[in-house]
Amino acid sequence: MKAGKIFRFIAALAVAIVAPIATFAQDATINGLAPGIINDQRYNRAIHIMAMLLVGFGFLMVFVRRYGRSALTATFLLVSTALPLYLFTRGTNLFGIVNNEIDRLIFAEFAAASLLIAAGAVLGRLKMPQYILLGLLFVPFYMFNEWIVLGGGFGLIDTNAVVDTGGSIVIHAFGAIFGLGVALTMRTKQEYEMSLETDATSDRYSMLGSMMLWIFWPSFCAALVTPAQMPHTVVNVIMALCGSTLTTYIFSVSLRKKISIADIANAALAGGVAIGSTCANASFGEAIIIGILAGGISTLGFAVIQSRQQKWMKLIDTCGVTNLHGLPGIFGGLVALPIIHGLALSSQLLGIAITIVVAFAAGMVTGKVLPIMGRKTEVYEDADEFLDVDAAA
Amino acid sequence: MKAGKIFRFIAALAVAIVAPIATFAQDATINGLAPGIINDQRYNRAIHIMAMLLVGFGFLMVFVRRYGRSALTATFLLVSTALPLYLFTRGTNLFGIVNNEIDRLIFAEFAAASLLIAAGAVLGRLKMPQYILLGLLFVPFYMFNEWIVLGGGFGLIDTNAVVDTGGSIVIHAFGAIFGLGVALTMRTKQEYEMSLETDATSDRYSMLGSMMLWIFWPSFCAALVTPAQMPHTVVNVIMALCGSTLTTYIFSVSLRKKISIADIANAALAGGVAIGSTCANASFGEAIIIGILAGGISTLGFAVIQSRQQKWMKLIDTCGVTNLHGLPGIFGGLVALPIIHGLALSSQLLGIAITIVVAFAAGMVTGKVLPIMGRKTEVYEDADEFLDVDAAA
Amino acid sequence: MKAGKIFRFIAALAVAIVAPIATFAQDATINGLAPGIINDQRYNRAIHIMAMLLVGFGFLMVFVRRYGRSALTATFLLVSTALPLYLFTRGTNLFGIVNNEIDRLIFAEFAAASLLIAAGAVLGRLKMPQYILLGLLFVPFYMFNEWIVLGGGFGLIDTNAVVDTGGSIVIHAFGAIFGLGVALTMRTKQEYEMSLETDATSDRYSMLGSMMLWIFWPSFCAALVTPAQMPHTVVNVIMALCGSTLTTYIFSVSLRKKISIADIANAALAGGVAIGSTCANASFGEAIIIGILAGGISTLGFAVIQSRQQKWMKLIDTCGVTNLHGLPGIFGGLVALPIIHGLALSSQLLGIAITIVVAFAAGMVTGKVLPIMGRKTEVYEDADEFLDVDAAA
Repeated sequence: MKAGKIFRFIAALAVAIVAPIATFAQDATINGLAPGIINDQRYNRAIHIMAMLLVGFGFLMVFVRRYGRSALTATFLLVSTALPLYLFTRGTNLFGIVNNEIDRLIFAEFAAASLLIAAGAVLGRLKMPQYILLGLLFVPFYMFNEWIVLGGGFGLIDTNAVVDTGGSIVIHAFGAIFGLGVALTMRTKQEYEMSLETDATSDRYSMLGSMMLWIFWPSFCAALVTPAQMPHTVVNVIMALCGSTLTTYIFSVSLRKKISIADIANAALAGGVAIGSTCANASFGEAIIIGILAGGISTLGFAVIQSRQQKWMKLIDTCGVTNLHGLPGIFGGLVALPIIHGLALSSQLLGIAITIVVAFAAGMVTGKVLPIMGRKTEVYEDADEFLDVDAAA
Repeated sequence: MKAGKIFRFIAALAVAIVAPIATFAQDATINGLAPGIINDQRYNRAIHIMAMLLVGFGFLMVFVRRYGRSALTATFLLVSTALPLYLFTRGTNLFGIVNNEIDRLIFAEFAAASLLIAAGAVLGRLKMPQYILLGLLFVPFYMFNEWIVLGGGFGLIDTNAVVDTGGSIVIHAFGAIFGLGVALTMRTKQEYEMSLETDATSDRYSMLGSMMLWIFWPSFCAALVTPAQMPHTVVNVIMALCGSTLTTYIFSVSLRKKISIADIANAALAGGVAIGSTCANASFGEAIIIGILAGGISTLGFAVIQSRQQKWMKLIDTCGVTNLHGLPGIFGGLVALPIIHGLALSSQLLGIAITIVVAFAAGMVTGKVLPIMGRKTEVYEDADEFLDVDAAA
Repeated sequence: MKAGKIFRFIAALAVAIVAPIATFAQDATINGLAPGIINDQRYNRAIHIMAMLLVGFGFLMVFVRRYGRSALTATFLLVSTALPLYLFTRGTNLFGIVNNEIDRLIFAEFAAASLLIAAGAVLGRLKMPQYILLGLLFVPFYMFNEWIVLGGGFGLIDTNAVVDTGGSIVIHAFGAIFGLGVALTMRTKQEYEMSLETDATSDRYSMLGSMMLWIFWPSFCAALVTPAQMPHTVVNVIMALCGSTLTTYIFSVSLRKKISIADIANAALAGGVAIGSTCANASFGEAIIIGILAGGISTLGFAVIQSRQQKWMKLIDTCGVTNLHGLPGIFGGLVALPIIHGLALSSQLLGIAITIVVAFAAGMVTGKVLPIMGRKTEVYEDADEFLDVDAAA
């Protein structure tokens, strides 16, 4: 009986892996456009997302003092681990249709984005090989949650019942909460007492990363929508980003007296995170309001909540992923309820709840496994692992 | 009677806003390509232009000493103000066709580009909320000029009589002259005497901004041309940029004995500015010659004219927008006369003249309004408005 | 008789120049897609390649101490010399079909990429006007080799017999070996004894350049493949890059004890170089293995071979182009033999051999010509040619 259950589980898993691919093969003829056209449209967005993963996330994380080389190298390693792992795992289906290769690449990039978010929570407290191990552990958990929430896994939620076009829930919130789980499990007294220093001269690199994410965010959200949905989706994302950028400035100045450039570089993007679930459905007015609210929530998080969270949970969230991806991601998933007509309330809430539980549990498991490769009680610096590093740089 | 005039003005304004949108809805079937294809082609160029707006203009302006964070944050705020304002204003038309959303986005980006040029003239002499106010004031004036020169507003110039595909006149010259108007009105004795210092360590950031503008310039000029015109337009823009880049080096070395990296970062782009009006029409040979001449004019501007202009007009043009966008923009508008067969001489000249007058008057009005939010007589530094800024950085 | 031979040579040259253009005009209808669609697909890749040329190669070369401004300006000049020269030379054909303009642009960008590789070998030992002269000399030699190896020139190798989709042989290996030829001819005792210093604070700029190359590499390799081949080609390139990125980290740490950030920035790209010949044909598994091997070869080159090569050949290869483009390029050309079924063994080997000979000979000739514009026996610094350069920056 038990073997039968396992078999059925494996079969369900196989179907779940195969199903979305088959769906996308159909997508290729939506709006009457040939596969050679749809593929190329998606390819361009895939490259835009790649720019977000490497230059976007990579340079946004360069702000940690004396850890810039490590942050960039870690970004390279995380992406290079996640993409082939996801692509090969997803490739275990029976359909060898050409169309699928670009869609599979985009799904793999989504997983890599979520992984980079998770890594942001523990940045500076892993050594290089541990980032690779983090990637190897993260991707299966991510695919498992994606399968349950979007792919009908275990029959808990109907396929397509959860609306999350641009991944507010399964990409952003999942990554942030996973990272929080890892950080919570691996925390040491020393690192908590010795807070991470930021590097004033790296501000402009962070702004470069932030701007790269801002620029290409419409392609992230519109990567897999139909050609008919694309224009409205794209303008919605830009509206939301404009909204969060303006609010971030206003909140940063109001809450702190002066502007924090870290608020600008991070919270300006919260509109992109929060519009993810509703980007294809909201009106322009709704989109800019979602952006404004997300920017406010996120800046409040960086300026007020983060220090309290650190005391309460006794942990360091290096890049503040709770504030940029966690809270705005959950907000984005919830705001779909009033905005999208005919949305299944219970499915959307269940999807959010499952994502939170799976991400946190998976993060805690990962946090238990990572230290098998060693554990330093203090934060790392470039000089620990890199040659010829000028101590001052 | 007066109410009737106002009504007719409002009606004409409404038609002018609606007309170009309707035109582009027609464009969508030019060359027999489906809307889903045309939209996507234009979407990619819209994203390229976004990269120009944020990383391009933003990093090009990082050269001002101790003002890098402010320049980047101002860029974020200017773009986030201009895009929704333009999109909502343009959205006040009767046609809800899907195609229009991407075209409207591109028009909004053009407005944001022109605004960033204008802001370049007064960079370092506004505080953050004033950049937002600048954006709010600039966009209606910009749309007003666009309506008169390209949209047949007031019946002064026939629609399509002025040739300005890539915006030499209505984007570049308008922005530069508007900025000059603001700078002239807001000038103080103190700021003129205390000239802006440049920051040697930021050279490479400026080169990054410059290269991003260079790379994506073909998409700026070809954003709304027909698929049949695109290839020739694109190669023309590249020819012009190559021409101005080579000449900038030669002129910089000849006029100054050694190369000024600021000349390279700026004047290399003058070919892109000047080819704007004729990019779809010039031959390759004409395009490279336009680039060569524009690079020469612009470098001469930076190396020789700028210091005289400052003495004569008693003003500071922080980023030298007169030399990069003003002179090459007007040159680009004029060079259309010998190059484009059948061009209406009087319309083209009238379009240039109106743009100069409207931009300068609007800039002066704006320069009177901006100080209501306060006025510092000296230049700003990051430390004035930003937290935790290392004085040396 | 001799005049007859020359005439026939010129005629053959003309045909060779015309032939590939005609081929691409046919390509435009492959997969039944209209020219307006194919052109736009290729245009987007052309812009991606432009980002590689300027920001990619440019910033990757910023690592040389006190030579950042020069490296970026040289990049601008090299690109602005190569593109019009190639475009005008290629334009000397009888077919004025619109389609060709974008394809011609992509070919010109390939030539510019190869030129930038060649310049990398002698970076820091030419003054600015010599980079322009280098470009003027390089392009005809490059086109000559392209014509022989791919275009059936002199009837030595059948057209299409050599498989080199993404240019492992004719772009990467050619550029590297040409550069080596120049460096060998121009070497001076002083510069060899005074090895180039790297600039620790520029690491992050180099990583920016490296990431830009990584991100857009799929567009480089897939620029001219058919729409049907594109998805597989693209994923193969990403697989190879992930493979080389991971191996580079492992080899760098193993061979040097600590990570060298220069290894990461450079050798991580070796997978892209090596997959060039087989990117449209390899399986995903083969692609990642090619990447892994190329990353290993390249890191071994940087960590072990480079210092021995310098002693043995008494030359400095500034950017280590031998290790990044030379060895992985030749490896990529050779690995096509076991992977591509039905490949003509002798043609592929002959193509590689001819490329090596032509590149080296042409490089040596160029190395003899360049010093007519003067020769400094020591390495250059920004302050030699640029105004207002802070000696410490």
